Amino acid sequence: MRQEIAAFQGERGAFSEEAARRLLGGQVEVLPCLRFEDLFHNLETKKVQAAVVPIENTLAGSVHENYDHLLHHDLPIVAETRVRIVHNLIAPPRVPFGAIRRVFSHPVAIGQCLNFFTKNPRIEKAPFYDTAGSVKMIMEEGLEDAGAIASSAAAEIYGARILRRSIEDDRQNFTRFFLLRRPEYARKYPVKGDRWKTSLVFTTRNVPGALFRSLAAFALRDINLYKIESRPLRGKPWEYIFYLDFLGHVDDPVSQNALRHLKEVADFLRVLGCYPPGE
Amino acid sequence: MRQEIAAFQGERGAFSEEAARRLLGGQVEVLPCLRFEDLFHNLETKKVQAAVVPIENTLAGSVHENYDHLLHHDLPIVAETRVRIVHNLIAPPRVPFGAIRRVFSHPVAIGQCLNFFTKNPRIEKAPFYDTAGSVKMIMEEGLEDAGAIASSAAAEIYGARILRRSIEDDRQNFTRFFLLRRPEYARKYPVKGDRWKTSLVFTTRNVPGALFRSLAAFALRDINLYKIESRPLRGKPWEYIFYLDFLGHVDDPVSQNALRHLKEVADFLRVLGCYPPGE
Repeated sequence: MRQEIAAFQGERGAFSEEAARRLLGGQVEVLPCLRFEDLFHNLETKKVQAAVVPIENTLAGSVHENYDHLLHHDLPIVAETRVRIVHNLIAPPRVPFGAIRRVFSHPVAIGQCLNFFTKNPRIEKAPFYDTAGSVKMIMEEGLEDAGAIASSAAAEIYGARILRRSIEDDRQNFTRFFLLRRPEYARKYPVKGDRWKTSLVFTTRNVPGALFRSLAAFALRDINLYKIESRPLRGKPWEYIFYLDFLGHVDDPVSQNALRHLKEVADFLRVLGCYPPGE
Repeated sequence: MRQEIAAFQGERGAFSEEAARRLLGGQVEVLPCLRFEDLFHNLETKKVQAAVVPIENTLAGSVHENYDHLLHHDLPIVAETRVRIVHNLIAPPRVPFGAIRRVFSHPVAIGQCLNFFTKNPRIEKAPFYDTAGSVKMIMEEGLEDAGAIASSAAAEIYGARILRRSIEDDRQNFTRFFLLRRPEYARKYPVKGDRWKTSLVFTTRNVPGALFRSLAAFALRDINLYKIESRPLRGKPWEYIFYLDFLGHVDDPVSQNALRHLKEVADFLRVLGCYPPGE
């Protein structure tokens, strides 16, 4: 079998690349992509065999754009993983901490290191399009007064040096990633596991108590929900589509009963994937 | 009584300013602010008497940052309104459509006018920090090859010209705004109305069926829910806090019963405001 390629969003050294290696092994070949929609497009058109997409962060919340993409593409979730987000202050090898006047990174990463900036008021926040990309940029430009906030992998890849490790304000900072495949692959090579999680998306009829009735399909069968997320429904202002994760294999009889019950009260229902819960 | 001042986020001519005028009258004095957190800070420190904050858009979804701010400040919601978002292509007075090579605007606005860019491939998308601010900038810089996407109010305020009206892809584009006051004002001048909406925030105990039990407090009393939104709970990875809007006055006996019931199953509960539903 040919070496497979996994697409992720961001530059080499992004946290998404770390997720890809956790999900597919350290030696997996990767394709960095500019935008999230490129991941879905490249997987659909068989340019890659897998895509790794961030779906939620414990501080910033859901990556809503990717929930929308999951709905619009038929690319099943076959695995998930959780990556601890450790932000490091990184600089070119000969730039000492005292020389740094500005620090580049993605605005979300900057926003997660505010204590560092408060303690170092001489250092300016410099928003950039990507965490790892900011390391790449300061190295390529040979900046002598600048640092970047990114993963330790990014420092290694671009030959930069870590000046301060783990400068994030809150250590409870994790991002959850999905591994997506094409439907035929998911059918041919089913994932193995003892415990399972199932993700689905549905819309309710616009009647009183509709969401309550939908959740009853699970609660009345003692099925544990992990998460529920609402997104606006296109073309129907002030109506919503719901994404839900529950504990259980989609083919378990109790799950099948719950899904049949949910179909009675839902206008639309689609299973997005069934996979072992990530650690 | 002194003329009151309402803070909003963005430059003069932002859709938030239109919301402020709908909520408080066309003559209200406004204070444009750079960031959402400035709105909350300026209202709390009495620099302004009211703040107007966007909370959700029918295409882009919730403005999650403002849900987080509502939790961290005691500034009650006293009214809401919905503004139809109409994006116009705007240019300096003597710049014809044929001269335009790039169009500045907030990335969300650009993303809502993709058909326009597809039909005009010679025009480049130029992301900018603000819709109305992009009109201000092209006027101040006297750009002769550039346009901006913003409200008609922005064109008027900065003396620019509308070249194409309503270039948004989807006309079902509305933003819902909250009017916030300080608690003492809200108590002294209660809003009048026949129909009421109540917004609250709560966390559930981390037990199976917790959300279902929470919604039961409303469903079992035939109370209509408008919306439910989840956000990550700080310090407790993979647990969530829920925001919920229901139809009814918070002081109605049935609402009081529902809230008492919800308290039995919720770890934390706070009412964020009670206000007439916006049109």
